[in-house]
Amino acid sequence: MKGFAMLGIGKTGWIEKEKPECGPLDAIVKPISLAPCTSDVHTVWEGAIGDRHNMILGHEGAGEIVEVGELVKDFKPGDRVLVPAITPDWNSLEAQAGFGMHSGEMLGGWKFSNYKDGVFGEFFHVNDADGNLAHIPEGVDPVLAPMLSDMVPTGFHGAEQADVQFGDEVLVIGIGPVGLMAVAGANLKGASRIFAVGTRPNCVEAAKFYGATNIISYKEGSISEQVLALTDGKGVDKVIIAGGNVDTFEEAVKAVKPGGKIGNVNYLGSGDYIKVPREDWGVGMGHKVISGGLTPGGRLRMEKLAKLVAIGKLDLAPLVTHKFNGFEHVEEALYLMKDKPKDLIKPVVIVAEDLMEE
Amino acid sequence: MKGFAMLGIGKTGWIEKEKPECGPLDAIVKPISLAPCTSDVHTVWEGAIGDRHNMILGHEGAGEIVEVGELVKDFKPGDRVLVPAITPDWNSLEAQAGFGMHSGEMLGGWKFSNYKDGVFGEFFHVNDADGNLAHIPEGVDPVLAPMLSDMVPTGFHGAEQADVQFGDEVLVIGIGPVGLMAVAGANLKGASRIFAVGTRPNCVEAAKFYGATNIISYKEGSISEQVLALTDGKGVDKVIIAGGNVDTFEEAVKAVKPGGKIGNVNYLGSGDYIKVPREDWGVGMGHKVISGGLTPGGRLRMEKLAKLVAIGKLDLAPLVTHKFNGFEHVEEALYLMKDKPKDLIKPVVIVAEDLMEE
Amino acid sequence: MKGFAMLGIGKTGWIEKEKPECGPLDAIVKPISLAPCTSDVHTVWEGAIGDRHNMILGHEGAGEIVEVGELVKDFKPGDRVLVPAITPDWNSLEAQAGFGMHSGEMLGGWKFSNYKDGVFGEFFHVNDADGNLAHIPEGVDPVLAPMLSDMVPTGFHGAEQADVQFGDEVLVIGIGPVGLMAVAGANLKGASRIFAVGTRPNCVEAAKFYGATNIISYKEGSISEQVLALTDGKGVDKVIIAGGNVDTFEEAVKAVKPGGKIGNVNYLGSGDYIKVPREDWGVGMGHKVISGGLTPGGRLRMEKLAKLVAIGKLDLAPLVTHKFNGFEHVEEALYLMKDKPKDLIKPVVIVAEDLMEE
Amino acid sequence: MKGFAMLGIGKTGWIEKEKPECGPLDAIVKPISLAPCTSDVHTVWEGAIGDRHNMILGHEGAGEIVEVGELVKDFKPGDRVLVPAITPDWNSLEAQAGFGMHSGEMLGGWKFSNYKDGVFGEFFHVNDADGNLAHIPEGVDPVLAPMLSDMVPTGFHGAEQADVQFGDEVLVIGIGPVGLMAVAGANLKGASRIFAVGTRPNCVEAAKFYGATNIISYKEGSISEQVLALTDGKGVDKVIIAGGNVDTFEEAVKAVKPGGKIGNVNYLGSGDYIKVPREDWGVGMGHKVISGGLTPGGRLRMEKLAKLVAIGKLDLAPLVTHKFNGFEHVEEALYLMKDKPKDLIKPVVIVAEDLMEE
Repeated sequence: MKGFAMLGIGKTGWIEKEKPECGPLDAIVKPISLAPCTSDVHTVWEGAIGDRHNMILGHEGAGEIVEVGELVKDFKPGDRVLVPAITPDWNSLEAQAGFGMHSGEMLGGWKFSNYKDGVFGEFFHVNDADGNLAHIPEGVDPVLAPMLSDMVPTGFHGAEQADVQFGDEVLVIGIGPVGLMAVAGANLKGASRIFAVGTRPNCVEAAKFYGATNIISYKEGSISEQVLALTDGKGVDKVIIAGGNVDTFEEAVKAVKPGGKIGNVNYLGSGDYIKVPREDWGVGMGHKVISGGLTPGGRLRMEKLAKLVAIGKLDLAPLVTHKFNGFEHVEEALYLMKDKPKDLIKPVVIVAEDLMEE
Repeated sequence: MKGFAMLGIGKTGWIEKEKPECGPLDAIVKPISLAPCTSDVHTVWEGAIGDRHNMILGHEGAGEIVEVGELVKDFKPGDRVLVPAITPDWNSLEAQAGFGMHSGEMLGGWKFSNYKDGVFGEFFHVNDADGNLAHIPEGVDPVLAPMLSDMVPTGFHGAEQADVQFGDEVLVIGIGPVGLMAVAGANLKGASRIFAVGTRPNCVEAAKFYGATNIISYKEGSISEQVLALTDGKGVDKVIIAGGNVDTFEEAVKAVKPGGKIGNVNYLGSGDYIKVPREDWGVGMGHKVISGGLTPGGRLRMEKLAKLVAIGKLDLAPLVTHKFNGFEHVEEALYLMKDKPKDLIKPVVIVAEDLMEE
Repeated sequence: MKGFAMLGIGKTGWIEKEKPECGPLDAIVKPISLAPCTSDVHTVWEGAIGDRHNMILGHEGAGEIVEVGELVKDFKPGDRVLVPAITPDWNSLEAQAGFGMHSGEMLGGWKFSNYKDGVFGEFFHVNDADGNLAHIPEGVDPVLAPMLSDMVPTGFHGAEQADVQFGDEVLVIGIGPVGLMAVAGANLKGASRIFAVGTRPNCVEAAKFYGATNIISYKEGSISEQVLALTDGKGVDKVIIAGGNVDTFEEAVKAVKPGGKIGNVNYLGSGDYIKVPREDWGVGMGHKVISGGLTPGGRLRMEKLAKLVAIGKLDLAPLVTHKFNGFEHVEEALYLMKDKPKDLIKPVVIVAEDLMEE
Repeated sequence: MKGFAMLGIGKTGWIEKEKPECGPLDAIVKPISLAPCTSDVHTVWEGAIGDRHNMILGHEGAGEIVEVGELVKDFKPGDRVLVPAITPDWNSLEAQAGFGMHSGEMLGGWKFSNYKDGVFGEFFHVNDADGNLAHIPEGVDPVLAPMLSDMVPTGFHGAEQADVQFGDEVLVIGIGPVGLMAVAGANLKGASRIFAVGTRPNCVEAAKFYGATNIISYKEGSISEQVLALTDGKGVDKVIIAGGNVDTFEEAVKAVKPGGKIGNVNYLGSGDYIKVPREDWGVGMGHKVISGGLTPGGRLRMEKLAKLVAIGKLDLAPLVTHKFNGFEHVEEALYLMKDKPKDLIKPVVIVAEDLMEE
């Protein structure tokens, strides 16, 4: 079969591979729609997770099942399914402790385009089909469904880690697609004012659509100073970090109240240390909790988030600014993600013929 | 009245001051027993909270009430009371949010020897007597009671922030008096193995008494490497930091599992940034939560912890290695704390004549 | 001064009383807008809290400060303020434990029209003004502000107790004004499908406005059977009870999944025992948590909820179906609440002349 | 193979069955030590879970692996293992939501002697060996190990559901073996006074050993009245129910403070409704949370609790009052459990020859 792969750091290309084999609990799936992720860009061009050779890329997509293992109960060939970026080993000790995304080892639930071939192949392998796939519910457009693999659950996990409560004022740093879903997540958890940091007009517009009440531009000065000015010097209740780098934590700590929480969902690609400023962190005693975590994956999570889309409480359309018809456009979509033109939020590649749009 | 004060950074001495005035909700108390704290040492000799002039020191003690305001309901002159180091303004927005220790501003609940005169005076002032004092229960030795002002609640708050659960393996970094109470707190929350980091023989012995199962010496190599060696490379479930400095967080992050929690109760006196290593922190996604907080104060907290002492489930005696008879020995006790002889854990100064020991 | 009072069980009338006195922490307030509550009806005509003589009724309103005590810092005469139904003693042990609504004793934070005169007087007394009042923010219509005293915080507390999470399916039993705010609260916490139980057309319409996706009529059969039919026999994730009686819990327990939570905010006026069916409750082991609690009160809570209104994320207008101009109409409004005509959700009485509407 | 079985309601006997088959994820185990449970008694003589025919009994035991499936990674024939009473399907939606004990359906994680043959056979089948077995650690006596199947995790789950915090006063109703472990669990979570309700001298002695500070006899009057008398009319912070029946909840609700929590781990064998008294439950608003849940099962849980035993922080010996040598004594042990002589806490049947005691 054909797949679009990382050949080595900095190099991509189409390769031929054996179709993956199906274990007794697993499924083999062919994609119906796909999306590249900034993580793929990090992986290839920054070597962020180390070198990989001829590894098929991609961890965002929806598909159609072509084969299931003998122990699989709830899925059968022909079913169209949502596929999460993170597919935990559910009986691992880490999953039993509530952290399936770290099953086996830290980040061990992230398998696609990390420990094994990703979804940018003619077929891909899903471990534990009953535990990790979900039927696409009525009301969810299969073309937009790849947004449920990573963007929605990751952004929403920012709001979960920040523990947003009714009426909280929330700072969201970064309004790329994950940041936008962090805004939507904070809004859906009852935040009052949401301060969103970003500048690209498309993203600003989408941020407002998803519930941001104030837009902050980092080009106009320190984020934290702008936040403090807008909150009578008090700071916000919670912060979600969905962009920036290791230095961004300094702004987050300065902008949040004592007793506040900072939830990071940004993949930190470089730098030795996260910068947590001692004095603003209350000389160690300010109760400014700092959390950072990979999104939970698996079936239940995806089913629950998909329900929000299915009944119209979460609209995915504003996230997708570019659409391609045909599997072969995966390459173009990835390079678009790499080059990030000004009007891009997310591209989607439609693979199934019946879904293609004019 | 007389008080032992910080005259300026690096200088201490006895001064004369007016006896404090009692507001309608407040109490005036005379000490019956007192203890100096390492924080007093930081305050005077490191200028850790900035300069102060003629501020009476001390925030650990028990006392006898000499006057109460007209709105005080539960206390009267003659009552012997526990006095917490932290005395929140309970109607503040921060206290309503669950963070009384930050009432008004970050660390704003810490008033004694910070925003106002401390307890090393012939009399001292307690804001909101009904909300912040507690009667000394039967079964609590008034001589040991100053340990309930700060050492017990602070150490136990480390275990609370680390969120210790049944069977957790816990690393406690630092086994001075706060670290020892962190060990006791972790043990009382159901920790299984407790790895305590320290070297002074008195402290090591006390750590074992309070529930430590393994002693780690930082002199024998990296703390995290020793922990990983003792846990099959898995790391511990939780970490409590009760000693060290801003660099200590690197060891904590390396030693804890994904999904683990780090609770800091160490006052970080210097350094610009807390060191959180990016890779070991899961490139931002390892779910290693970092918390650091001032102990909750106030009446309820102290009453509940005092009950553990009163019924014999927490023994304070091993914490107190030195006792002095007479208020005038406060100076000597503070200098002992500053010089930290090898056999010191905590000194206590007995002020009330009826409590003096031979 | 004049006040509309409960004269005894089953009897109401206008009475003359002394203007209340102001303690050092308190405020005296004159109403600018008022609303009667179903609780007032319970209190008077069902004697639900026992007999009361010449007690001024009412605990929902907004007002203007006419006097403050000498220790009050943040409010002054002339300020227009939100007034919560529940005004805790913030330094009580219960408030320190996080349960200010039970300060002193169970339900002890509920003072207006329970332990002291309510807000249906020319003036009323507010304990701890700094802790219990809030300025009316720009963007909040003072005429609708009484909805923030009880209806909003109570309904939202149902969603808090039910611990609604992203994508949860939630059953809300009862869609009177509290139930409607429970729907809004569940929706603002990220519920997907919300099944709202009720029949009155005005309420049904408002329920849909606030986020209900399915309406269930108890007239068409058992609530739980209808819920199970709509959820493939699985039941909902969470239940909020905002209507019915002690028998309603049976339906809630039957309708909720194992691991689910039931949050009650309905004042249960009669019956000896809450009915929790043993088998459906998993013979004691089904992890169907049952909670029921009075809304938290106080300043912070009200400020945070008011922010949602101020920025337009919560619209109070659909709650108020009837408006009266003039303090004297309090009586009429209360009887309207008692008689509950078909088109009623909530009436408001506008007291301040500048707020009166044509 | 031979097994001791329930033949029908009220009838037991030895039967012959096929040795169970091993799926790819499973293990076949032969017992090395076994214990009967009061649940077995309920099952047989009260028909509590309905009728069963020729179902092998038992869900408490330790064993030696004789066969593992091809996908099992961490266990091999010859390994001696702890076996939990509850063996979840870890990839089920319920387990993903944190409730593995209800995998598939309410109580669905309880398979042994409920949905399939129990451990009182020459061999028994364990689903998902990697997820549900644990090696017996050094320091855990294999003879006492059956206490870790159910008694310890169930009793401790009472303390978890009651959410015991430092200094809490806790009422434990029932001091059979589960109640004793509830006492131990509350104590290990930092309870101060523990009021234990029971009368049998052996149990009373063990309760004190495990941390009870006060013993209450239900023979001397109402439990709640005795508790209120011992707590100045305030009640306890938390209640664990480990005995009694549906009426016991009335005492628990009356004995607990507003803001308190009640955690039930008692299997309620009869009665239509749990009795929750309306007025004492704060007319629906007292924040007295009622929870009841089957113990979590699986490997991680058992490993963590076993560590407490291995390092000597939990002593199982006082639980076991009777020991038998030889598999054939399972029958006698069960009848002992049924007849409950005065000096019984728990019997153990030693099956492995090398473990037999004189």
